[in-house]
Amino acid sequence: MTFLEKIKHAQEKSHSILCVGLDTDWKSLPKKLDGEENPVVVFNKAIIDATKDVACAYKLQLAYYEAYGERGYAAVQETLASIPEHIVTIGDVKRGDIGATSEQYAYAYQEMFPFDAITINPLMGFDAAEPFLRRADRGVFFLGLTSNPGARDFEYLELSNGKKLYEEITDNVRAWNEPKKNAGLVVGATKPAELRALRERAPELPFLIPGVGTQGGTMEDVKAANGDGIAIVNVSRGIIAASKGADFAEAARAAAKKYT
Amino acid sequence: MTFLEKIKHAQEKSHSILCVGLDTDWKSLPKKLDGEENPVVVFNKAIIDATKDVACAYKLQLAYYEAYGERGYAAVQETLASIPEHIVTIGDVKRGDIGATSEQYAYAYQEMFPFDAITINPLMGFDAAEPFLRRADRGVFFLGLTSNPGARDFEYLELSNGKKLYEEITDNVRAWNEPKKNAGLVVGATKPAELRALRERAPELPFLIPGVGTQGGTMEDVKAANGDGIAIVNVSRGIIAASKGADFAEAARAAAKKYT
Repeated sequence: MTFLEKIKHAQEKSHSILCVGLDTDWKSLPKKLDGEENPVVVFNKAIIDATKDVACAYKLQLAYYEAYGERGYAAVQETLASIPEHIVTIGDVKRGDIGATSEQYAYAYQEMFPFDAITINPLMGFDAAEPFLRRADRGVFFLGLTSNPGARDFEYLELSNGKKLYEEITDNVRAWNEPKKNAGLVVGATKPAELRALRERAPELPFLIPGVGTQGGTMEDVKAANGDGIAIVNVSRGIIAASKGADFAEAARAAAKKYT
Repeated sequence: MTFLEKIKHAQEKSHSILCVGLDTDWKSLPKKLDGEENPVVVFNKAIIDATKDVACAYKLQLAYYEAYGERGYAAVQETLASIPEHIVTIGDVKRGDIGATSEQYAYAYQEMFPFDAITINPLMGFDAAEPFLRRADRGVFFLGLTSNPGARDFEYLELSNGKKLYEEITDNVRAWNEPKKNAGLVVGATKPAELRALRERAPELPFLIPGVGTQGGTMEDVKAANGDGIAIVNVSRGIIAASKGADFAEAARAAAKKYT
């Protein structure tokens, strides 16, 4: 199954474009999990069980697992293993390096941890991106326009050719997508006008859209701006931190349903 | 001790600006290490023992450790612990994400693994960079101009203000350096003319310079282009892959001495 087919299948089955962001911080878990050997795994499994019929994807922000020390490896592995096969798994790694190094990252996040898709930082250009694009069943979401204030520092800069940097990146990603149809763009939900314009610019690319919920974007604005394009909308804290109590999983489910 | 003081002290003690790049690939280690429980650790310790009097820094390319699976965490930890205290340790992670996520990465690579310096991708702007800049004893090398062909795709693009993107990044990094004097730039050795110009543009910033050896740059060209600025020149494969035989450590030492 190609990457695009997997997204479409997962979205048909869940009737949803919601991705649940497992940005699981081991330092602020519900007290209920005190004493567990690997509380992050227990937490993630409970969230997945509670939301798997209303989510088309789960995204693991790897930073939280890297900051989890020795237990982080098992946490990623066991979390991935507990996600139903038909749901899209996304490793939010934002890597990108010279070709030989990107090959190592591709091995780590496409083979060792078999994420269906990963996020990649495009700054270093094509040879840094290419190792991630070799498999048609592995998607690559390149940073297009991010949801944070610092997007103004470089991404919005106007080039001498009249384009903004994020538009130039988008045009390159469209070309990188051609051989295997496995590239996409990260586009922040906090910028609906730009999202609409990018959707017109790259109608064929799947978008991974963070920034709904805590960061301020709304699902309605995103859907209106995105139109008919393939999109996966990520919500993290708005779902996994809906309650810090013993009812965290039920609260996550209730929160997730509001986004479907 | 501040980050800059640590660099100066390490370079005075070693009479060298050489950084040995521990891009240790577990899939292609010398046969001598077959049967070791964690052969990457044994390899790295042997390289460190053989080169510690001629190197001012060691750089771990984290991609290789992430691709090493469960043993990667211990490999980073034990390698760091075996590097003499006065030598600069660099975690080549090229991370960068929204603020809350960058805080997790900062915890992972400045506290949990106490690298003296890390590499960071500046694309997402200041709020993504700021969490890494909070400690005066932790340096941050931002990608300025990289040594790979793909640098042409975005880094060299001309902006409407007349600067190239990498020059605009450099000017921002100079500002980010002001509060704590702990920022630097990654500048590829394969581009001596640009290195010279960047040195004039940012005389106060330490440069981390990869690309000498296998990638084609020479130490002589780098030293001439860099002039009096603080620079750390990284060589990886040219040293750690000097021999695949049982003499790999002696061969690494002989290779390293050529760069001092």
